[in-house]
Amino acid sequence: MKDFTASLAAFAAGPISTTSQARIVTSLSVLDWVAVGRAGANEPVSSIIRKMVLDEGGKAQAHLFGGDAAPMRGAALVNGTVSHALDYDDTHFAHIGHPSVAILPAALAVAEWDDRILVDLLEAALIGMETSIRVGLWLGRGHYQVGFHQTATSGAFGAAVAAGRLLGFDINQMRSVLGLTATRAAGLKAQFGTMGKPYNAGLAASAGTETALLVHHGFEANADALEGPFGFGATHQGASDLSALDGLGDEWLFESVSHKFHACCHGLHAALEAARELDIAEPEVAEIKIKTHPRWMSVCNQLTPETGLGAKFSYRTVIAMQALGYDTALPGSYTDKVCADPRIKSLRDRITVEADESLSETQANLALLRRDGIRREATHDLLTPMSLSDREDRVRAKAAKLIGADKADAIWSMLRTGGRARDLAARLTG
Amino acid sequence: MKDFTASLAAFAAGPISTTSQARIVTSLSVLDWVAVGRAGANEPVSSIIRKMVLDEGGKAQAHLFGGDAAPMRGAALVNGTVSHALDYDDTHFAHIGHPSVAILPAALAVAEWDDRILVDLLEAALIGMETSIRVGLWLGRGHYQVGFHQTATSGAFGAAVAAGRLLGFDINQMRSVLGLTATRAAGLKAQFGTMGKPYNAGLAASAGTETALLVHHGFEANADALEGPFGFGATHQGASDLSALDGLGDEWLFESVSHKFHACCHGLHAALEAARELDIAEPEVAEIKIKTHPRWMSVCNQLTPETGLGAKFSYRTVIAMQALGYDTALPGSYTDKVCADPRIKSLRDRITVEADESLSETQANLALLRRDGIRREATHDLLTPMSLSDREDRVRAKAAKLIGADKADAIWSMLRTGGRARDLAARLTG
Repeated sequence: MKDFTASLAAFAAGPISTTSQARIVTSLSVLDWVAVGRAGANEPVSSIIRKMVLDEGGKAQAHLFGGDAAPMRGAALVNGTVSHALDYDDTHFAHIGHPSVAILPAALAVAEWDDRILVDLLEAALIGMETSIRVGLWLGRGHYQVGFHQTATSGAFGAAVAAGRLLGFDINQMRSVLGLTATRAAGLKAQFGTMGKPYNAGLAASAGTETALLVHHGFEANADALEGPFGFGATHQGASDLSALDGLGDEWLFESVSHKFHACCHGLHAALEAARELDIAEPEVAEIKIKTHPRWMSVCNQLTPETGLGAKFSYRTVIAMQALGYDTALPGSYTDKVCADPRIKSLRDRITVEADESLSETQANLALLRRDGIRREATHDLLTPMSLSDREDRVRAKAAKLIGADKADAIWSMLRTGGRARDLAARLTG
Repeated sequence: MKDFTASLAAFAAGPISTTSQARIVTSLSVLDWVAVGRAGANEPVSSIIRKMVLDEGGKAQAHLFGGDAAPMRGAALVNGTVSHALDYDDTHFAHIGHPSVAILPAALAVAEWDDRILVDLLEAALIGMETSIRVGLWLGRGHYQVGFHQTATSGAFGAAVAAGRLLGFDINQMRSVLGLTATRAAGLKAQFGTMGKPYNAGLAASAGTETALLVHHGFEANADALEGPFGFGATHQGASDLSALDGLGDEWLFESVSHKFHACCHGLHAALEAARELDIAEPEVAEIKIKTHPRWMSVCNQLTPETGLGAKFSYRTVIAMQALGYDTALPGSYTDKVCADPRIKSLRDRITVEADESLSETQANLALLRRDGIRREATHDLLTPMSLSDREDRVRAKAAKLIGADKADAIWSMLRTGGRARDLAARLTG
């Protein structure tokens, strides 16, 4: 019988062997995270969480998205919330969680405060993100289905481990921080559609920072509180699936994290990717038929939205936008004005959407009838692995659009060639 | 069909009608809380939580047990943890939670920061403590049995409401803060016996302070996240028992809160009270027979403890201590030395303990055989209501023992005659 906590702790505290794929994907996630965090810094939820933390004053231990600095716990809360404000950050589908927004704010805050080199930050972040995915798999799909937000719950354990790694935890401290985090981790899907969703990411990051700092200062907790009979798994409808440990230390599940390339509901992405493959341009379009998994029909099939927010949940609108050259990667492209554009409205009327049980949730099928009578069709699955070079190109292009090519290139260069965590932290705003 | 959240919000935001009993018991709980918080300020867990928060610096918004001041969220975390460190604070048996340690740190932090009068603080505290009990009853005993620590979970909602009352929340803001707290509230009984137990109280206090400040700044959350189909109750094995609303606004369940008068395991208290009624003195004792509920036999029936900690879980030792004039109200009375006292050992050998199914968990029976051949017997139930004047005498006597009669009297006078919250806050140390 394997001991889940002890296995995770041994992994998180011990020597690790990473792959180039895992290292590069981690760096891409950091770049992506900085870009979406900067892009989200002026959202209403960002202003509110920043105000609360900045009102407290305190030591400038760690930079904040949107400017200024705060103590580590406050910075983790702010940066987790702000970077999830646009819901444009990375996603891991194995457990359905957003690793970067929960783990990176904790890891970066501690690394900046302790003036560590980027290599240490990236290693701790990778270990933390892998931990969050493994905890998520151990809790299982039922934990998510019943209402827990894995980004918040599993994320807190990942954040704690990442912070603990930077603080030099041994196996016993790792076990202790996993146990202590069990009494602090929280977050409900009931907040989806409200400011509470990005807050959940901030909660995970700040919870992990807090529990790691406490253990660092000598706090003694029940190390069995994650998996024991009255532990987090048992109380939070977890499956305790020990296959979550398979390959731990050899395989990096984090390698298959997905980055978002469109600033809209994830349910629309497979269709947008299929449209991209078909290279659709409005003047050539006679009609388009979209097929998607039935669950998305009630989520993101608004037929004639009139607001920018509505456009983010509308197959017909986003496909029309793409065919008309609007950049779906830019949050600013989704406006009330675009919904009123007569060319959008006209093309939208030539697009139909239907449910297809044979497609998975990550698949979509597009059938294009061109004015010249030619028919083209494409099916895209978001789970299809992307080559590392394609992924690098697209993440860097996304970051360049969000924060400018110069800044995106500078951050990427820093991540690939080394430097100090505080230099990266300064890039949250500067 | 009553709406639980809306009913609580209307109660918490509306005009209220208190009873003199409720007001006086609230003041007694505040005095008791200050006394046990001061007494616990040097415990190891207190030093650790204080260090973490003080390392952050920040504005001196609220005083801390043990000295210094911190921003409100940090002060709530510290003061909740410190005041529960000795496990000597008040308990409400309806839902099995510790109201004061979860709610008062939040209420006092906001009241001090906003320079409010004590009457406002006491009203907000009473509303918050009543809310925590009602939420606890709504969640039900199953929520506690499966592993959730009501002090932490229900307590967070009470803390949020108390803070929100001081911040002037209307009904919609109260609904919003209850919904937001649903994604933040957490705490497991798995931490019992570790530093994690007092930390859970600090978590509740800081969670409520944080969510109230966010709503104060305009945060919009799902107001249905406490009781909705994917809400806190549904996900945390709550019973959704709407009878928890019975009498809300007319009756104050908080009036029946229990104060602890012995600094040891709660399972020993009924026996100590029975011994107190019998006025037992060692020179007169031939033998003593204690009967108690079977559940306590594995919790606090150490027969021959050798340490102060062990004495706190030993019927024979604490009854012997009381008969020999050791003050069981003082945490400092429970020492390794007392366990080695030959008179304690000798008397202990004349005391027997047995389980009795006919007794409830709050009852104990003592049968005394005196050397003069006279037999006396007493049964005590901790749930037996205590007259208000007896309660005042005993809480004030306890506080006087813990922090000195002058300080206890000064705090009591302030609570009964009025003043400012910041003057009370200054009494956390000075």
